[in-house]
Amino acid sequence: MPQKRLATTLLSTLLCAGLAAPSLASDDSLQEAIDYRSGVMNVFNWNLGPMGAMLKEKIPYDQAAFARHAKDLASAAALDVLSGFPDDSVSDDSAAMSEIWLDWDDFAAKYDDLKQASAKLAEVAAGGDKAAIAEQFDATRKTCKACHKQYKE
Amino acid sequence: MPQKRLATTLLSTLLCAGLAAPSLASDDSLQEAIDYRSGVMNVFNWNLGPMGAMLKEKIPYDQAAFARHAKDLASAAALDVLSGFPDDSVSDDSAAMSEIWLDWDDFAAKYDDLKQASAKLAEVAAGGDKAAIAEQFDATRKTCKACHKQYKE
Repeated sequence: MPQKRLATTLLSTLLCAGLAAPSLASDDSLQEAIDYRSGVMNVFNWNLGPMGAMLKEKIPYDQAAFARHAKDLASAAALDVLSGFPDDSVSDDSAAMSEIWLDWDDFAAKYDDLKQASAKLAEVAAGGDKAAIAEQFDATRKTCKACHKQYKE
Repeated sequence: MPQKRLATTLLSTLLCAGLAAPSLASDDSLQEAIDYRSGVMNVFNWNLGPMGAMLKEKIPYDQAAFARHAKDLASAAALDVLSGFPDDSVSDDSAAMSEIWLDWDDFAAKYDDLKQASAKLAEVAAGGDKAAIAEQFDATRKTCKACHKQYKE
């Protein structure tokens, strides 16, 4: 992906200025960071999938199960996930685009949107009002999409 | 791995009795379960690594960073991780051994040990007493090892 390589070179230059992203020590650390951040995404998916399926009535709605998934999504989103995106950790093994490090503050803000939205979803889901739950689930999914659109290949 | 296959066959027979593990719907669900549970393990490793390195003085001890890692380890351990081990989800893509489903209650108890130990580690780490932290870190690592010894290839 030549565009990615170009962006990486540009990135390396820009990062000399010392932006806010954590730094990377070795190839091992690169792989660990990728494993970590993709692991967190797997946890997100594991919880988002059944919640979406319940709201679309593909599987029976189960209030307790929904609330548990919402709680776990919020817990996973509250992890220090941004530490899994150290400076210049662009790789063919990762869908993370170099634009993340070119606009770190925006990426971090978009990640924070997920954190806030999923925390609210957990709260609403515990309450059990299905219409409110569906609305907040949509709001949460929108934060995923907003970030992926700009920063995920 | 013939031993694994044999155990799987045995397992399928035994599982007709209906043990406590969650059930599996399709090959897609199998892969999702593996992605989820291995994703959680990646989150564990991401946090255990630096804590171990700090205590072994391979990297400088940083109280705030240690406490954050301990908190995140406990948060990840508190997820509904056992749901990622549905009945009969043995696969060559996973290090999870079939013994898990042959002795589900013991597996679940060993997983609970990690949950308790990591919650205590998060508490001790927030307090900042380095000797107590090192002791509780060892206790936590022991819960990982006890489970891996029996249930991880």
